[in-house]
Amino acid sequence: MIYLFQRFVYQIPRGTRDFTIIEMQNRRYVEEKIRSTFESYGYKEVQTPTFENLELFTAKSGEGIIDEIYSFKDKGGRDLALRPELTAPVIRFYVEKLQMEPKPLKLYYFGNCYRYDRPQKGRYREFTQAGCEIIGTDTPESTAELISMAYNILKNLGLKKIRLKVGNLIILKEIFKKIKLTEEKQKYIIPLIDKNLYEELMNAMSEFRINQKDISEFIDILENSDIEKLRNYLKDNKNVLDEIEKFEKIKNLLENSYKISDLSVKMSIVRGLDYYTGTVFEIEAPCLGAESQLCGGGVYELIELFDGRPSGQAGFALGFDRTIIAMGEEKIVFPKKTIDLYIIPIDEKTILKAVEIAENLRKNGLNVDMDLLRRNIGKALKYASSINAKKVIIIGPDEIEKNVVSIKDMKTGKQETVKIDDLINFLK
Amino acid sequence: MIYLFQRFVYQIPRGTRDFTIIEMQNRRYVEEKIRSTFESYGYKEVQTPTFENLELFTAKSGEGIIDEIYSFKDKGGRDLALRPELTAPVIRFYVEKLQMEPKPLKLYYFGNCYRYDRPQKGRYREFTQAGCEIIGTDTPESTAELISMAYNILKNLGLKKIRLKVGNLIILKEIFKKIKLTEEKQKYIIPLIDKNLYEELMNAMSEFRINQKDISEFIDILENSDIEKLRNYLKDNKNVLDEIEKFEKIKNLLENSYKISDLSVKMSIVRGLDYYTGTVFEIEAPCLGAESQLCGGGVYELIELFDGRPSGQAGFALGFDRTIIAMGEEKIVFPKKTIDLYIIPIDEKTILKAVEIAENLRKNGLNVDMDLLRRNIGKALKYASSINAKKVIIIGPDEIEKNVVSIKDMKTGKQETVKIDDLINFLK
Repeated sequence: MIYLFQRFVYQIPRGTRDFTIIEMQNRRYVEEKIRSTFESYGYKEVQTPTFENLELFTAKSGEGIIDEIYSFKDKGGRDLALRPELTAPVIRFYVEKLQMEPKPLKLYYFGNCYRYDRPQKGRYREFTQAGCEIIGTDTPESTAELISMAYNILKNLGLKKIRLKVGNLIILKEIFKKIKLTEEKQKYIIPLIDKNLYEELMNAMSEFRINQKDISEFIDILENSDIEKLRNYLKDNKNVLDEIEKFEKIKNLLENSYKISDLSVKMSIVRGLDYYTGTVFEIEAPCLGAESQLCGGGVYELIELFDGRPSGQAGFALGFDRTIIAMGEEKIVFPKKTIDLYIIPIDEKTILKAVEIAENLRKNGLNVDMDLLRRNIGKALKYASSINAKKVIIIGPDEIEKNVVSIKDMKTGKQETVKIDDLINFLK
Repeated sequence: MIYLFQRFVYQIPRGTRDFTIIEMQNRRYVEEKIRSTFESYGYKEVQTPTFENLELFTAKSGEGIIDEIYSFKDKGGRDLALRPELTAPVIRFYVEKLQMEPKPLKLYYFGNCYRYDRPQKGRYREFTQAGCEIIGTDTPESTAELISMAYNILKNLGLKKIRLKVGNLIILKEIFKKIKLTEEKQKYIIPLIDKNLYEELMNAMSEFRINQKDISEFIDILENSDIEKLRNYLKDNKNVLDEIEKFEKIKNLLENSYKISDLSVKMSIVRGLDYYTGTVFEIEAPCLGAESQLCGGGVYELIELFDGRPSGQAGFALGFDRTIIAMGEEKIVFPKKTIDLYIIPIDEKTILKAVEIAENLRKNGLNVDMDLLRRNIGKALKYASSINAKKVIIIGPDEIEKNVVSIKDMKTGKQETVKIDDLINFLK
C-alpha cells in the first residue's frame, strides 16, 4: 500500500510540465531572440516576485478572477497569489519604486504565470509570458514603436504567417455612443464582438431596438474598418477627431516607416475595455486555430488605479509557450547544440593527463566533456556521438609518452595526431 | 479609509524583492557566466515546475520541513508546495522521464525557491538557486570534475577569496563506529559538529562516557584532517580502505589535474547525512561572515528513495543571491550596459525619417533608441546620457534635404555629418 501511494506522490503535479534538455535549448534560444529584440529598441529588463498580494490582481481584473488564481496565506495571514499575469506586478513596482526614473521608462520582463483551471491540450497551469511597458509617453511614435517591436520579435523568431491587427478603444466607445449602447448593454455585446459571434451580436442589437441600418453600419465598421470610413462615420463627433488622427499617424508609421505591409485595422478588438484607453493591437498566428493569439496590448492606464501619478503608458504581453508552438507549426528549425570536444582516456593511468588537458582547453574557451565511466573506445565514441561532440580526443599511454593525442573529427571521420602543446592552436 | 487600505495593498509582499534594471543586468551577467561554465563541462539545462506535490519534499527532508514550506491546495484537494530546493524535483523528473537517457547524464538548472520563515537581512522568502546533477557514475574522476566545476563557476565570476573544503560521510560514519557513537548519539552531536561548537561537542562526548583520549583524537581528526591521518586512524577497519583510496584520488585530481591549491580536507562536513553517501564538499566566501557558504554538494543517493533504479549520483546547489553579495563584498565590477545609438528628430516632420533610420539600423544589428517625447535637443541629450548612449544622431529638416545626419560621439563630444546611405558602413 505504501509503495502504491508513493508511486502516485512522486509525479509531476497535474497541469504542469518538466522541460527536457532539447526543450530547454529551444526555450533559451527563443528567450534570447526576444531579449535581443527588446534591447534593440532600448527596453531594459526588470523582475518582480512570483507571488503578490491577492488584492493587486482583483483591483485590476475584478473579484471574478479569484477562482482562476492559485492563492494561499502568508504567515501573517495575508492572502497571497501566484501571479496570473505580469502587468499588474510591474506597475505596482513602478509606483512603489520607479516613479522618479527618467522618462520614457522602457521595461521588459519574462516570468512564469499561473492559472488555476482545468488543464487542456496546450494549456498549462504554469506558463511563461514575456511582456513590456513604456511609461511616460503617449505620442503616436511611441505606440507605433511598441507595436512594431512586438511584430519584429515574432518576425525575428522566423515566423512568417502572422497577422497584425490594430484597433482603438476611444474610437470604439464613441461608436457605441453613436448607436446609444449604454454601458450595461456594452457589457452584454462586448463578449460577442470579442468572439466574432456576429449572428448573436445582430440578434442582441435587434433586441436592444437598434434599427437595422445602424446595425449593418456598425457591423461593417467592426469588420471592414479603415480610417476614412471611421472619420466619415463619426464626422459629427468633434471630440474623437484628434484620436482618429493619432490612430492614423500610428498606422502610417507602421506601414511607411516600419514597413509592415500586412497590417489591418480591426475595430472589433475589445481587449480590457476597463483600462485600455487608446490604440490596441493583437498579433495572431492563424496556424494555431481557435487559440491563435500570440501577443496583445496597447495604450492603457493602470498607474492611477495603483495610486501612482498619471503618466502615459502602453505595453503588451506575449505568450511564450504559444509562440514556440507556432514556430513548430511553421517548421522553424531550432539551432542544434554541440560540444566542441569529447576526451577518451584509454586506461586508468591516462585519466590524470586527460583531466589536465580537458581543463586546459576549457580555460581557453572550449566546451569539453570526457569519459567518466572508463568505457572502451567503441562505447565511449557512441556516447560522444549521442552528445553531438564535434571532435574526439583519444589519449593512451603511447600518446602520453610521445606528448601527443589523437584527434578524430566526428563529421568527416578524419583522424590526426597532434602535439599536446600545439592542441589549442590546432583547435582554434 | 479605503485609500489607506489600498496604499497598504499595493506593496510588494513581505520578504520578497523587485529587481531594478541594474540589478537584472548584474543577475543576467552572473547567470550567463554560471551557464557557460556548466556548459564548458558538458552539462545541459533542464527545468521543473515552480510547485510540486508536498510529499516530494517531506520524503527527502522529513515532516519537519513542512513549517518552512509555502503550501496550498490544488483544485483536486492535493497539497502542493512552492519548491524549497531543486534537487528533489529534478530527481523526480529523472525517475519519471529520463532513466533511459545515455549515461552519465549531466544536468544543470536555475530556479526560484521559497522559504516560509521570518525575513532577515539578506534572507528572502523567494530566492534563486543554481544546481546540477550527474547521474550514472560514481568514479573519482566524475566527483572531482563536479567539485572543480563548482569551484570554477565561482572563480570565473571573479571571486578570489573562496575556500574549498572536502569531506567524506562514509569515512565519517566509520569514525563514529570506532568510538561507538550510536545513531541516537550521532543525532545529538552532528548539529554541534555542523556549527563548529567544539566545547559543547566535548562535553556531550564526555557525557556519553567516551574517554578523553578518544575525544581528543576525534576532535583532531575533525579539525586537522589529512588522508594519511585518516588511514592510520582507521587502519583496523578493512571496509573503509577502498573509500579512503577513492577520497584520496579525488583530492589528487583536484590538486594535481585541476590545479586547485587552496583545498582543505575537513571531516567536519556533515551535510545531509541521510542521503549523502560519499565525498561531500562546501565552498565558502569568508567575507560573508556567519552565513558564508556559497555552494555545497557531493555524492548521494536519492533516486532509490524516489522509486528509481539505483545509479551513482552527485550534485551541488549554489546560492545565486549569496554569490552576488560575495561579488559585491569583493568589489567585483559588473559590465555596464550601453546602447549603440540614440536618435533625436528635431521636429515633428522629421519623425517619419528618424523612425525609418532607427529601424534600418536595428535590422543591421544595432541597438537603437530614439526620442519619443518631442523634446528639445538639450533635454534629449540629457536623456541619451542617462541611458548610456554611445552615439547620438540628430535629424533636422536641413539634414533630410541633404540626405545626411549629424552624429555626435557622447564620449569624445566629436560631431560629424554622415550621408544617410553611408550610415551603416560608418557605424561598423
